[in-house]
Amino acid sequence: MSTPDPVHPTSVRLRVFSLNCWGIRYLSKHCAQRYTMIGDLLAKEQYDVVLLQEVWSEKDFDALRKKLASSLPYGHYFKSGVIGSGLAIFSKHRIQDTLRYRYSLNGYPYMLNHGDWFGGKAVGMAVLNIGNTTAHFYVTHLHAEYSREKDSYLPHRVVQAWELQHFIRYTSAEADLVVLAGDFNMHPMDLGNRLLRTYADLRDAYVETPKFDGCEDGGTMIAENPNNDMVPPEKGIRIDYILFKGSSRLELHCESMSTTKGSVPDHAFPYSDHEALTAELRLDRVSQDGVSQDGSKGMGPLARGSDRTAGKLAELVDIVTEARTEVKVGLHCAQGMCYTAARTGVMGLVLLLLELAIAAVPWLALGAPGPFPSVSFYLLGALCFLILLTTALLYLFYTMEIKSLQEAEDQMRQAVGCLQERLRGFPLASPGPPRLGPPGKERRPGGVGPEE
Amino acid sequence: MSTPDPVHPTSVRLRVFSLNCWGIRYLSKHCAQRYTMIGDLLAKEQYDVVLLQEVWSEKDFDALRKKLASSLPYGHYFKSGVIGSGLAIFSKHRIQDTLRYRYSLNGYPYMLNHGDWFGGKAVGMAVLNIGNTTAHFYVTHLHAEYSREKDSYLPHRVVQAWELQHFIRYTSAEADLVVLAGDFNMHPMDLGNRLLRTYADLRDAYVETPKFDGCEDGGTMIAENPNNDMVPPEKGIRIDYILFKGSSRLELHCESMSTTKGSVPDHAFPYSDHEALTAELRLDRVSQDGVSQDGSKGMGPLARGSDRTAGKLAELVDIVTEARTEVKVGLHCAQGMCYTAARTGVMGLVLLLLELAIAAVPWLALGAPGPFPSVSFYLLGALCFLILLTTALLYLFYTMEIKSLQEAEDQMRQAVGCLQERLRGFPLASPGPPRLGPPGKERRPGGVGPEE
Repeated sequence: MSTPDPVHPTSVRLRVFSLNCWGIRYLSKHCAQRYTMIGDLLAKEQYDVVLLQEVWSEKDFDALRKKLASSLPYGHYFKSGVIGSGLAIFSKHRIQDTLRYRYSLNGYPYMLNHGDWFGGKAVGMAVLNIGNTTAHFYVTHLHAEYSREKDSYLPHRVVQAWELQHFIRYTSAEADLVVLAGDFNMHPMDLGNRLLRTYADLRDAYVETPKFDGCEDGGTMIAENPNNDMVPPEKGIRIDYILFKGSSRLELHCESMSTTKGSVPDHAFPYSDHEALTAELRLDRVSQDGVSQDGSKGMGPLARGSDRTAGKLAELVDIVTEARTEVKVGLHCAQGMCYTAARTGVMGLVLLLLELAIAAVPWLALGAPGPFPSVSFYLLGALCFLILLTTALLYLFYTMEIKSLQEAEDQMRQAVGCLQERLRGFPLASPGPPRLGPPGKERRPGGVGPEE
Repeated sequence: MSTPDPVHPTSVRLRVFSLNCWGIRYLSKHCAQRYTMIGDLLAKEQYDVVLLQEVWSEKDFDALRKKLASSLPYGHYFKSGVIGSGLAIFSKHRIQDTLRYRYSLNGYPYMLNHGDWFGGKAVGMAVLNIGNTTAHFYVTHLHAEYSREKDSYLPHRVVQAWELQHFIRYTSAEADLVVLAGDFNMHPMDLGNRLLRTYADLRDAYVETPKFDGCEDGGTMIAENPNNDMVPPEKGIRIDYILFKGSSRLELHCESMSTTKGSVPDHAFPYSDHEALTAELRLDRVSQDGVSQDGSKGMGPLARGSDRTAGKLAELVDIVTEARTEVKVGLHCAQGMCYTAARTGVMGLVLLLLELAIAAVPWLALGAPGPFPSVSFYLLGALCFLILLTTALLYLFYTMEIKSLQEAEDQMRQAVGCLQERLRGFPLASPGPPRLGPPGKERRPGGVGPEE
């Protein structure tokens, strides 16, 4: 259970765990044995909430659930796509409700070797009541980055980050405590990561913690991990995160954080190809005058609201503009691909009609020899048909991709417009007219939301 | 602009319009002329917010936008799916932000004659600041009902209603005012409608209004409308709605409501095959002691919270249980279809292998006559291939359908469990421990949310 803190006796501490389990049955190395190890770890350690990614088989989730029946009695597997979302949550506290948002874009179905499309990538949300705190836990896994130099999935990942921040901002208004964990497949300063942290006003546990025990620079994909097929640079890369924010009612601190370090004592191999993260969060109530229980001034939304000065707004404008440019690049590519699919389809159709016309000659001029040997005739016909079918499916797919990119771009344009308007009125702005509501109306912690 | 009310001088009135435009270019009757009529109407009438459905072509949206540049200067088209979502919003007040949630289920891609799948049905949300009120407007269009007696899309529509109430409940926490309008394709007492209204705590403008001018029983699909292909029963049916709710800070009343009545004066045909809805809403601030400006006791969430007694909870349990049963029926069907697709695929594969084996005989036993005339050989091969391909695609599709149905069913099971737990403790329950927050912490209007 969430334990009282000895130094801050009225505080509550929460242990949150996150791991990309790399659980592709029959394909991931030592998959079954690793799940046993993961289950043992979770059963032994006193975690409050466990957020897992890449649990690709529901059978593995069910096995974990059975094993954790006493230590983490509540669980939910987020079903989505063809295979599943791979996302799961286990909790000591009853899961009150769950919500799942499936990203509009997630790679290409024909990239079978990458396979992200089939995973139905999403963000899963679970509502928990911890004591009398309403907590929203989010778990996600964004599209993988297969090449840092030529990352053709960048627009998709940026749109995912955009949808993720949007979803969190709007669904977390009621929460006292927000935690987002998962494999973002983005380095700390990558565009999508900046967008997510800044717009949804999330704090990075690794950056905030005063006590860290783990890999150098917080790496979660490290060269020392023998499960790694794509060996990351010597120092490792940090692509898995635990982010959090409190509210006007709840002050949140990350007290300590740790990661696994590749090998596991007494075991021949690590838990996964990623490192596992554990964060210890301390929850302090904030009294009405904005002072938290340890005497420090609360970082509630009112306090934070004043932080959101021109500088912060300008930063957001820059980030969203950068994201919009990236989406535009993606849009340009998708439009090109859609055009190519249409052109190839038309060529296939012309070829098919031509072949049929030539084949019709002997029927029309009876007795003339057939212009084709029949094998090549049918093979060519089948080829044309196949081209037509494939290009039709691709055309449909690219059309949907274009629509999703356009929607994200529209939203970003809107957001930049609203942010700039607020920015323009900034230094001269009066506190504004009182809102249509009682004077005590609270301002919400939902990031630099344009609704404020 | 939102106008002050003469009887309630400090109140604000809002005119909301909703119409399913039936805008399928080249297929819907008089499509271009009807858009001209709709544009004229919207430009003339003093609407604050216009929510449109079935605007299938973005070109038509752009034309409307141009025409309404001065009367309704802000607009957004929600892009989704292959064609688009068909959803659009126009507003007198600046659109601060938009969000779109695409439903997991929306019919079948091979039902080309119904075509819903290609529409990428969704719910669109727009955030508006009206004066100093934060308003969330939602527009949606659920899957059509092609046969009331044998409605094979019922599980899909129920899951859409489930996702809709979930989305609204969680994204409206910050809003003072929530309006949902659209073509639900459900009669007033249909399961999905009850689920939506009860769980998201939405009030039906037609039921609430003291002043109604429109078709009998509020019908929006009426026999008198010559555009109607599927002639509804004599009295017409009510499947288009404007629903709303206020908050603890804002009291909301529907002052009057009207619908078009089939024909339009001076025009040869109506605006659409559906009737248009207009609702006039009155917004009253609620003072801190819960009294609205006209002296009546506010219906804020605190007041409404006490309404949510055992009776209301029990009703919700019944509705969600009924919905869960419907989803289970859908799941059973989808599993059957998935199995059939797999079996047919295997048969196609066996046939293909058999044919290849027979064809291999003459090559192996040189000189033996070919067992097939080549035309039938190639035709059979093509047929087998086509069967394999179709069944593979269908298998993928049904697998995704099953996952989405299972996710909804899981969420419903969770919800029923939580509702029942609250119900069990009801008559004896104390007001509960104070929440981890200042005493002034406000309770939110988010319906009978399990998070409360």
